[in-house]
Amino acid sequence: MGLFISFEGGDGSGKSTQVRVLAAWLEETGRDVVVTREPGGTKMGNAIRELLLHGEDMGPRAEALLYAADRSHHVQSKVRPALERGAVVVTDRYLDSSVAYQGAARELGTEEVRELSLWAVGGLLPDVTFLLDLPAEDAARRAAARAGGTAGEGSGAGESPGLDRLERAGQEFHDAVRAQYRLLAAREPQRFYTLDARRPVEDLAEEIREVVVGMFEERRQRPGATADGAGGMRGDEGADGVVGGPGGERA
Amino acid sequence: MGLFISFEGGDGSGKSTQVRVLAAWLEETGRDVVVTREPGGTKMGNAIRELLLHGEDMGPRAEALLYAADRSHHVQSKVRPALERGAVVVTDRYLDSSVAYQGAARELGTEEVRELSLWAVGGLLPDVTFLLDLPAEDAARRAAARAGGTAGEGSGAGESPGLDRLERAGQEFHDAVRAQYRLLAAREPQRFYTLDARRPVEDLAEEIREVVVGMFEERRQRPGATADGAGGMRGDEGADGVVGGPGGERA
Repeated sequence: MGLFISFEGGDGSGKSTQVRVLAAWLEETGRDVVVTREPGGTKMGNAIRELLLHGEDMGPRAEALLYAADRSHHVQSKVRPALERGAVVVTDRYLDSSVAYQGAARELGTEEVRELSLWAVGGLLPDVTFLLDLPAEDAARRAAARAGGTAGEGSGAGESPGLDRLERAGQEFHDAVRAQYRLLAAREPQRFYTLDARRPVEDLAEEIREVVVGMFEERRQRPGATADGAGGMRGDEGADGVVGGPGGERA
Repeated sequence: MGLFISFEGGDGSGKSTQVRVLAAWLEETGRDVVVTREPGGTKMGNAIRELLLHGEDMGPRAEALLYAADRSHHVQSKVRPALERGAVVVTDRYLDSSVAYQGAARELGTEEVRELSLWAVGGLLPDVTFLLDLPAEDAARRAAARAGGTAGEGSGAGESPGLDRLERAGQEFHDAVRAQYRLLAAREPQRFYTLDARRPVEDLAEEIREVVVGMFEERRQRPGATADGAGGMRGDEGADGVVGGPGGERA
């Protein structure tokens, strides 16, 4: 099996940038790297992403089910095949996004959302999850800048027409999501690695690289385990088997 | 609350015809009637239906999740509001379709598919489910005729280019689905009403009308219950509450 890395955090926390920087570095070192994202890592996923971001209003259960459908297909068609050939898979969001966003702010229980997601993916968890933690006021400033507006005080940024549905939800929502993420990280310290997203991009990238290098080295020392791109062993787990993340083994 | 009626059965069993005939009769008697279907009873549902029938291949879990998402949205945006104003809702397929198709033939457990569906709709079950039971050979003959081909012997009809993905699945699949439906009907005799779909359309329509009339009369005798279109009481159940079907009360 390869190495499965997810990036999590609120909008504007710099996930996409760190995904890009890490993937470029992994490629430079000669690794087989697959970069993906949720929702929308596949053709079907893009159709679902369109529905979620720009479709008619829907209830929290319908929304959670669409995210789970996207995730199920994404894992089966893209993530698992890559991991089985020994690749490093780097994803911009994974199931913790659903638990944090849906479970906290959409008024569904976090346990039911987590169970739904785990059922969808046959139990596949990332080897490491980088949480880019950002306070609401910094996120709003970044969102406003991204939408081309000036950095307004308070919630003004949330009303810019350049922002999509999730981005419009504003600071209160960001705080609720952030609190959920921190709770998730506290519950699974062996899988989560939390970073202060206000730090300079290159500092963060450096620390992320160090963690990943550490994981490669640790795996090299475990007999039978492979995290190398070329010639990685095929995993024995069937595509539908419930497989726990190896996170616990790293603790 | 109004009256919630679902029609179930394999492809070619005559569900759509009976839905149409029943709805026309209900309208003639002055009832508030909402006719719908799954997948695809809403705008979002139509997009999901397109994905399911003509999208890329997907695993059984992704498929089950898409059906559940469609169902959740369908119930919240269309079925519940109609029932709450006292209307009669007639749907061409509901959650038993998922249990029969996915659970049996797609190699997912029927219990997990049923649980997923019930979670999606907050527990809403039909007051009565008409199962149009048809042997595989009759279904294949009807499918071939519908696709414009001649009625071939055996499974030839399954290869016609005029048939969609579900229709192509052939006789063996039809038999597995049929067996699942009969099992569901046996488990919930107070909700299911099974009919031999080989009988003439008008005979079936007559019997279905009699069952529905019986349900209206029974409700009229129960104080507080309303199944009349005009002026129906609003249900007290919240849109997200888990509400069992009143089927048991009719036994």
